[in-house]
Amino acid sequence: MPTPSGHTRAIRASRVIGTKVYNLQFEAIGEIDDVMLDKMSNDIMFAVVNFGGFLGIGEKYHAVPWSLLDYQKDKSGYVVSLTKTDLKNAPAQSASELTASDGVPARDEAMMLIGR
Amino acid sequence: MPTPSGHTRAIRASRVIGTKVYNLQFEAIGEIDDVMLDKMSNDIMFAVVNFGGFLGIGEKYHAVPWSLLDYQKDKSGYVVSLTKTDLKNAPAQSASELTASDGVPARDEAMMLIGR
Repeated sequence: MPTPSGHTRAIRASRVIGTKVYNLQFEAIGEIDDVMLDKMSNDIMFAVVNFGGFLGIGEKYHAVPWSLLDYQKDKSGYVVSLTKTDLKNAPAQSASELTASDGVPARDEAMMLIGR
Repeated sequence: MPTPSGHTRAIRASRVIGTKVYNLQFEAIGEIDDVMLDKMSNDIMFAVVNFGGFLGIGEKYHAVPWSLLDYQKDKSGYVVSLTKTDLKNAPAQSASELTASDGVPARDEAMMLIGR
């Protein structure tokens, strides 16, 4: 089915990677670095988003739930309802740390962003 | 948890893309072209696998269920229990056709590969 905004339902991982991420004020705040997949199930574990430049903390990555990323065609990017404070409070890690211990801690932390 | 074969549970989409695919005889038969994600849920829709060279049909792609891809470290690739006959009988499409109608028909066809 088409999404409410008229897009198709399927998206290639290669097209997701590199896509800009905006906050609710439509300021560019980061970029999708990768998508973490679960080898043991059919689940997308989380998106790996680099907010480093935005936060002024260099190359650090956050695990962000896939469901939190709202693609907006006119921005050609994802809009997330996350503030600088949310991100500063959430664990920022190196890309390799996000996959340590099977990515499960990072996924659990990502889910906490929803429940804030 | 570590997988039965001792790997971690998480895998980056960017590492999946480009990975070789082997048949049960460990002959290289294709390559992962992309991973199709569902925008409306947390699901991996299917892997897009290019078996074109193997089948001698040029640049054609199959939707293969994620769960059917068994990563084997010693091969640095995925092993699938698909034969040339299975693949010839399964719909092979262009990459853009796989995303047409939201990828849902392709996903349904991919699932048929499991139930064969």
